[in-house]
Amino acid sequence: MTSTPGDLLALISAGGATTRSDLVKLTGLARSTVSQRIDALIERGLLEESEATESTGGRPPRHLRLATEDSAVAGVDLGVTHCRIALMDLAGQVLACVEDPIRIDEGPEVVLAHVDRRVEGLLAEAGRAKGALRAMGIGVPGPVEFATGQPNNPPIMPGWNEYPIPEYFDTTVLVDNDVNVMALGEHRNALQNVDHLLFVKVGSGIGCGIVAEGRLHRGAQGSAGDIGHIRVNGHDEAGCRCGNSACLEAVAGGTALARRLTELGIHAESGADVVALVQSGNTQAMRLVREAGRLIGEVLAGLVNFFNPDVIAIGGVMARVHEHLLAGIREAVYRRSLPLATHGLSIVPSRTGVDAAALGAGILAIEHHLSPENVNRLVASAG
Amino acid sequence: MTSTPGDLLALISAGGATTRSDLVKLTGLARSTVSQRIDALIERGLLEESEATESTGGRPPRHLRLATEDSAVAGVDLGVTHCRIALMDLAGQVLACVEDPIRIDEGPEVVLAHVDRRVEGLLAEAGRAKGALRAMGIGVPGPVEFATGQPNNPPIMPGWNEYPIPEYFDTTVLVDNDVNVMALGEHRNALQNVDHLLFVKVGSGIGCGIVAEGRLHRGAQGSAGDIGHIRVNGHDEAGCRCGNSACLEAVAGGTALARRLTELGIHAESGADVVALVQSGNTQAMRLVREAGRLIGEVLAGLVNFFNPDVIAIGGVMARVHEHLLAGIREAVYRRSLPLATHGLSIVPSRTGVDAAALGAGILAIEHHLSPENVNRLVASAG
Repeated sequence: MTSTPGDLLALISAGGATTRSDLVKLTGLARSTVSQRIDALIERGLLEESEATESTGGRPPRHLRLATEDSAVAGVDLGVTHCRIALMDLAGQVLACVEDPIRIDEGPEVVLAHVDRRVEGLLAEAGRAKGALRAMGIGVPGPVEFATGQPNNPPIMPGWNEYPIPEYFDTTVLVDNDVNVMALGEHRNALQNVDHLLFVKVGSGIGCGIVAEGRLHRGAQGSAGDIGHIRVNGHDEAGCRCGNSACLEAVAGGTALARRLTELGIHAESGADVVALVQSGNTQAMRLVREAGRLIGEVLAGLVNFFNPDVIAIGGVMARVHEHLLAGIREAVYRRSLPLATHGLSIVPSRTGVDAAALGAGILAIEHHLSPENVNRLVASAG
Repeated sequence: MTSTPGDLLALISAGGATTRSDLVKLTGLARSTVSQRIDALIERGLLEESEATESTGGRPPRHLRLATEDSAVAGVDLGVTHCRIALMDLAGQVLACVEDPIRIDEGPEVVLAHVDRRVEGLLAEAGRAKGALRAMGIGVPGPVEFATGQPNNPPIMPGWNEYPIPEYFDTTVLVDNDVNVMALGEHRNALQNVDHLLFVKVGSGIGCGIVAEGRLHRGAQGSAGDIGHIRVNGHDEAGCRCGNSACLEAVAGGTALARRLTELGIHAESGADVVALVQSGNTQAMRLVREAGRLIGEVLAGLVNFFNPDVIAIGGVMARVHEHLLAGIREAVYRRSLPLATHGLSIVPSRTGVDAAALGAGILAIEHHLSPENVNRLVASAG
């Protein structure tokens, strides 16, 4: 609507303008106003301007671009047993990354101290100063109140309930649930031109990240996408940890499949064990994964009618055997969804794979840092 | 992002600016640029500027506002057996309205000729010239490709499939399905401050309009919100006109309830008959409506987990007995949805009532006409 310094930076970083003259033309601002705003952005280290390049005549134009040399963000993917961190520049390039085993149930102080040390190490590895860190995005395996960064009764994160994660760090920290950051990572890295995306994570549990018109849809309380507890038909015998029965993840999540295999006399403790059995050719495991796909597909069929997405991407550990999982999902969706809604629908395995969450968390940090509101705040605080 | 004439108009009509000086301050544009753009908007009849008012000193400011005297839009609600039209000014005030019985199955030429005559009559009634009509919004009882205004295999609109409705008229016409325009009408008239709204119409069939971040979510093919064909538990015996079985509207829509009452020996042909029976104290009809509410609530419980709305508004003919319907809906939603998602959730009867569709269709037309893209097009074409 207006042409604040933040708006000008957004125009440049989106590739819509590369010179001061472009900005004058695009915005209708006076040249002096553009110059004043661009100078402020350069002074704050957000933009840089090239030396004059060769030209066929007249004064050669100097090109503006996002300054990426002296800054960085960290994208942190916290799982129940792993911590993956990507250090990225503001253009989204990965500078360094690391993965460690952790135990989320050791609680926030232990886990966040580890994150802090690792980010410091990655900054050194990438040759950036400690003060170069502009923001951090963290994906956690449970519900989060996005506005405060506090986990909200997370069932598999003992000790984390209402812990104010951002306050632990010296930098700006955005916290979201893992499926939301995975959806963002998948969208920005592999599906930028898709308007409406559902990213379904099939791991121990089942969750969904929603992208509508290119932006994450978090809903009223930030709990949107919690599809693991939608009721499926004909499984009222299956109790769920949430207290209800017949929840999708209680019959089709990795943990549920491992339990059913064990009941059949085949040892499995986790979704990863089920995946290994499928990969080794165990037909019972294959049958269960395909059946899980059908149940997930039944729930997705309703959501396809409701939301009408362009693409459904399937990620999470169970997606490693996506040929079996997707067969079941597609079968159920095409049987139960309306033809108009499935007409242009693609159901695909996640392309971003294990990095989706860390990359998505980094992108969350970048998009916050470069948002016009934040940029204007930075410029104003410098003045 | 930029400060085009359309952006300036939007600032004024949203109440963010009332004088040229406001606009200079807000946008950073040169005063001469603002003046040039405002003059163009006034010349196009989009803005008007008050005479100078009294002032305590100096040159008194002149106030800018949307020009509403010489223009109008029409909002048209086409049902299977009714046509309701509201003539509105660009500020959303209703100038005149009319309702007639029609038969949608007489086909587009007959029905649209009726609309054309009625709009002409309403313009005369409101004392506006024929040429004052700027745009028209039409809600129809079936799926529509929004971009072209063509119904897409509408099951209860014989003869309308792929008929290019906008081409029938001399003005700009936006066509959407009835539930979307009802959701928009309800949102703009009664729930402006709600970010995420589901408007559920329970009539002969069942459908849903989705408002996300204040805007209609139409989805990839424009079919979002088609919840009438989501499968409900334990009703596989109920065949649906879509070819599947156990669809929500095949067990809980007004037509389905009338049929079940008839099977019980109580005569009913339509949802309106069921409503009349409930209002006359028929206990079988009350029981069926409450049970229908539970089934609708079961589907909504899943959608609440998925979408996390602030408000669910229930409209359509069956909502006239909302005390019975909402009791069932609330029971099922609170039993099956996650606590975080129902924490701040309101489930309420529609406040806009029978006018929601016509008002919403008019608002669709206004918002299109005043969109920065359209305003800039108008200004450019005048230049």
